[in-house]
Amino acid sequence: MKGVILGINPAVQIVDLSHEVERHDALEAALVLEAAVAFFPGGTVHLAVVDPGVGGARRGLVITAGRDRFVGPDNGVFTPLLLGERWEAFELSATEYRLSDVSPTFHGRDVFAPAAAHLALGVGPDRFGRPVHDPVRLPWPAASRTAAGIAGEVVHVDRFGNLVTSICRRDLPPDAIVQVAGRSVPVARTYGDVAAGELIGLVGSSGRLEVAVCEGDASRVLDVGRGAFVLAVSSSSRSSPKK
Amino acid sequence: MKGVILGINPAVQIVDLSHEVERHDALEAALVLEAAVAFFPGGTVHLAVVDPGVGGARRGLVITAGRDRFVGPDNGVFTPLLLGERWEAFELSATEYRLSDVSPTFHGRDVFAPAAAHLALGVGPDRFGRPVHDPVRLPWPAASRTAAGIAGEVVHVDRFGNLVTSICRRDLPPDAIVQVAGRSVPVARTYGDVAAGELIGLVGSSGRLEVAVCEGDASRVLDVGRGAFVLAVSSSSRSSPKK
Amino acid sequence: MKGVILGINPAVQIVDLSHEVERHDALEAALVLEAAVAFFPGGTVHLAVVDPGVGGARRGLVITAGRDRFVGPDNGVFTPLLLGERWEAFELSATEYRLSDVSPTFHGRDVFAPAAAHLALGVGPDRFGRPVHDPVRLPWPAASRTAAGIAGEVVHVDRFGNLVTSICRRDLPPDAIVQVAGRSVPVARTYGDVAAGELIGLVGSSGRLEVAVCEGDASRVLDVGRGAFVLAVSSSSRSSPKK
Repeated sequence: MKGVILGINPAVQIVDLSHEVERHDALEAALVLEAAVAFFPGGTVHLAVVDPGVGGARRGLVITAGRDRFVGPDNGVFTPLLLGERWEAFELSATEYRLSDVSPTFHGRDVFAPAAAHLALGVGPDRFGRPVHDPVRLPWPAASRTAAGIAGEVVHVDRFGNLVTSICRRDLPPDAIVQVAGRSVPVARTYGDVAAGELIGLVGSSGRLEVAVCEGDASRVLDVGRGAFVLAVSSSSRSSPKK
Repeated sequence: MKGVILGINPAVQIVDLSHEVERHDALEAALVLEAAVAFFPGGTVHLAVVDPGVGGARRGLVITAGRDRFVGPDNGVFTPLLLGERWEAFELSATEYRLSDVSPTFHGRDVFAPAAAHLALGVGPDRFGRPVHDPVRLPWPAASRTAAGIAGEVVHVDRFGNLVTSICRRDLPPDAIVQVAGRSVPVARTYGDVAAGELIGLVGSSGRLEVAVCEGDASRVLDVGRGAFVLAVSSSSRSSPKK
Repeated sequence: MKGVILGINPAVQIVDLSHEVERHDALEAALVLEAAVAFFPGGTVHLAVVDPGVGGARRGLVITAGRDRFVGPDNGVFTPLLLGERWEAFELSATEYRLSDVSPTFHGRDVFAPAAAHLALGVGPDRFGRPVHDPVRLPWPAASRTAAGIAGEVVHVDRFGNLVTSICRRDLPPDAIVQVAGRSVPVARTYGDVAAGELIGLVGSSGRLEVAVCEGDASRVLDVGRGAFVLAVSSSSRSSPKK
């Protein structure tokens, strides 16, 4: 893919964002994108290739959202960008912006990489194909205010076993406690605030509430994974923790 | 290695092609090179460091093949480039294009990286040493036409357990079936054409016929590895599959 | 981190040195830095993020040492640069050279990356904060001349199980033998000098004496790890090896 990009656009700066997304997991890739996009310079072209449907009927997309541009498969990997109002999507169909020989198994190299290189050269997004008004969106886990507190769910278990949740910093009361798997976990500022082996809630670098075990594996300790229910309550109003 | 290259040639674009070649496996590295070279811009310098013989008697090489240039150990890693007619090789012996202090264990940093940086700066390949007419070539697995069909072998098992074969797209009849380990496997266009757990043959992104298990491990299911015999036959003329 | 750096300094060349340092292991990171710094061009900004104390009381640092510059946490990761005479350190406190919103869990992105980008743009190191005269130094394992020979210790076990020691090339007699875990191991020039499975001492690419098992795992074979005692003796004067 990098060879193809540099052949079209030799001056481009290429950054590898992650090679550690679980194979075929568009939701995890979407979370990685969501966490990173704001930290890249305006105008960056983001290329995502988590593409289990390659060679089948799924479309390719070019998307603009605010100052940023995106290229990849239409499988929901761009969901967080499509939650706002300011986006336009185009089907990636123009044959002049792909390799002449397109393999059915690696559109990353043969379709998306050349499109991204041309976008970065200044080709307008509407040149790649007709507008798409119904790009695929994954069910996007959110937080909701309930009588009991802020309700959410585990959206991702990272490689350390930390539970990343759908509750964001702005949703949290300043003295929050997280309830998950029958346990009440205090929300601290950093790992340094608890001892090794203890459960801790904290807002991770992506702005999401995470539940972790200091120097341990929260997913294993609590025996929960993606989809598990979490509730953030104010410590002054919390219900009693279960044993 | 990158520090050395940038110290000599600060404007160069460095791309990491793969860090996942099995340690000391020159054949796997040769297959990676073969699959990638055509997708890089003309004039690219390809640097290969799979070098179990470092510090011993093996030579270092600078090779030109068509529009591309190569630097690395003379251990067969460049075999696919040497199968054609249009190549020249030179021994990497000129001391002015290496670091002043060469360690016996890391020629990648001390010999190959500086040579690659100088090549990319425009130093002619014949400046690095005398011509080499007998570079090391690995036995290169090919396909052959037999009465029974196109015969080949497994050349590589990738990290997903897919069996990469010596039979290339151009060798395959359009309605091919692959016989391997006593099984007959249909050749499809993409993974989407079969259900999870089923055996499938398909032409991978490198142009080689691969045998895979959809969302599974073909090497384990079939209990075969590198060197296993494969036969591609036309489905209209195929022999009966064995149980 | 790369997005932040390129947003501030679009022309910078970013090189990934290693993503394989054991989590939270400042000593291993310090050894990686020590081995690499001399091979990068003068003026390089080295950014180190092994940062278990993030969000706590540990300081951030900007250091100049000779021709090079360093940014990272004050936890000992820069120890080898601080063993010489020619260094200056400054506390990383100026708010104009960090992101406006600093997370308590990822100073690599929010504090160190912007500081490194500004340093590379030419901002003087003394602009980042007041001088620091007592940066944290890890106990730095060295070699010492004793009546029995050159005494040192294992400073790191690499991913192949090789034992990297505190004895450097300049400390070794030309005909050295290493004693470790009750075994006497000859020091050779390259792995090619011994058969598979045999113990071998050799000076690795970082200039440090290493003890390895050819195509094996020395740490497991000898059942030793970081801190184990090693002694290099001249083979003409060596004590008898123990069985």
